[in-house]
Amino acid sequence: MQLVLPDVTLKLKALQEANLLKGQTADQILSRISTSNLLSETLSGAIYAQECVPESLEMKAKVFKDLDEKAEVHTILASSTSSIPASRFTESLTHRSRCIVAHPINPPHIVPLVEIVPSPWTDPSVVSKTRSIMTEVGNAPIVLKKEVLGFAQNRLQYALLAEAMRLVEDGVLSPGDVDTAVMHGLAARWSFMGPFQTIDLNAPKGVGDYCSRYLGGIYNVLKEEDNSRQFSQETVLKIEEHQRSLYPQSDIPLATKWRDARLMALATHHVQTQQIDEALFPKK
Amino acid sequence: MQLVLPDVTLKLKALQEANLLKGQTADQILSRISTSNLLSETLSGAIYAQECVPESLEMKAKVFKDLDEKAEVHTILASSTSSIPASRFTESLTHRSRCIVAHPINPPHIVPLVEIVPSPWTDPSVVSKTRSIMTEVGNAPIVLKKEVLGFAQNRLQYALLAEAMRLVEDGVLSPGDVDTAVMHGLAARWSFMGPFQTIDLNAPKGVGDYCSRYLGGIYNVLKEEDNSRQFSQETVLKIEEHQRSLYPQSDIPLATKWRDARLMALATHHVQTQQIDEALFPKK
Repeated sequence: MQLVLPDVTLKLKALQEANLLKGQTADQILSRISTSNLLSETLSGAIYAQECVPESLEMKAKVFKDLDEKAEVHTILASSTSSIPASRFTESLTHRSRCIVAHPINPPHIVPLVEIVPSPWTDPSVVSKTRSIMTEVGNAPIVLKKEVLGFAQNRLQYALLAEAMRLVEDGVLSPGDVDTAVMHGLAARWSFMGPFQTIDLNAPKGVGDYCSRYLGGIYNVLKEEDNSRQFSQETVLKIEEHQRSLYPQSDIPLATKWRDARLMALATHHVQTQQIDEALFPKK
Repeated sequence: MQLVLPDVTLKLKALQEANLLKGQTADQILSRISTSNLLSETLSGAIYAQECVPESLEMKAKVFKDLDEKAEVHTILASSTSSIPASRFTESLTHRSRCIVAHPINPPHIVPLVEIVPSPWTDPSVVSKTRSIMTEVGNAPIVLKKEVLGFAQNRLQYALLAEAMRLVEDGVLSPGDVDTAVMHGLAARWSFMGPFQTIDLNAPKGVGDYCSRYLGGIYNVLKEEDNSRQFSQETVLKIEEHQRSLYPQSDIPLATKWRDARLMALATHHVQTQQIDEALFPKK
């Protein structure tokens, strides 16, 4: 477990440099972190434990059995899984009502979203406690009211991604133009107001007005967007070739570093724009 | 036509204040703008004309007939339509090969995306000239290689919006949590790298690797995302009620002002982050 500290230190220093630690220093935070190779020692006195093992049902099941045996009864046991409902690896546990999914989005130290997904047997107080812990540490939690395949983030992502691939496969857009369309159009707005608020401001009387004006036309487009369709290897290759024309495969780690720097700058931007929100965002 | 100048002036002053006029002043730009109620006078010597009448096929057809008769032969005639393919109102024109769609995204003075949609008879040189004019004035143009229902921007938007509405209708997420999921997760990344580049950095060897790892799982989710489905009035009401809990209908103009201020701040943010791109974005 000592192995994680150098990485955590690097990330904390980067956040400190970007002034994103809310007045704390990286060293102050590091002084509160301890590691152990003994699970029972790690869990001692814990109010919340987050499992982060690889995405394998077998491993999750094994770790949760261990956690269930060793954690104090009131410790919340959360899984980082991005796709396996907790019901699949917690059903037979003694204290399964304290188990929950809290799916962080990559890279979790910069992207604030966390998907909280209770199982049918998760205690409601565990859901609300998890949500408030996430809010307290500066994340943006959402709560799924039930388990669904792909949770919410990936369901939304895949819906758009499938249409993005269809546009390339049908020879409508180049892969680069798909990225431009999303970056410089849709996501410019979605990065601070989400899809529902976006349409709320796209009709004179708000979202209800928008739906009565445009849902008919939207259904006509959706009819052509066949989600049962699969994609050819040629389409995948075309997108791969486009990405490789931007940077070689060997530069993916560098591009990832760039992505994290841009996400950090975006987080700073959101802090700076709070004054615009306070000055202009109407409150009921 | 004098009526548009006060609005243009206001917008230019706001852009100047945000330092988004690339060293020019609002007055310098205003001095190059002239208005006329005579179409032939407006078109005299023009290399490019952009029609912005309301979204009615009848009106577009009438205006384009007029434009075709009065414009010099080499003037590009572009329509701002967000949904009507130019083939539907330019087919019978004498010089139909110079007609094209150049769909700006709302609000066009801040959102850089422009969708360029040629008709089957649009001259390729008109497409490339339109693209370069848009780039030159600081927009981010994309070129659709053929006319499709909803063009590209709305096809992508509707795909995600439909899943957003299904998540609310199926009782998985509240409307507010849908907006949070997109704002603080997906769009944080998409605002500077688009959906294809995003997945390129989500597998060790890039987008091809991502597809071979995850397309199977993606198809399983997509199978549940039935785009032929229509939404109940209760779902629309639920979203409407959520938006009205944020601000009353009468505050939509104020919220729109807030949106524009945030978009302007985001544009400034993109200028500021160019140094991160230059320092870290790998170039092949």
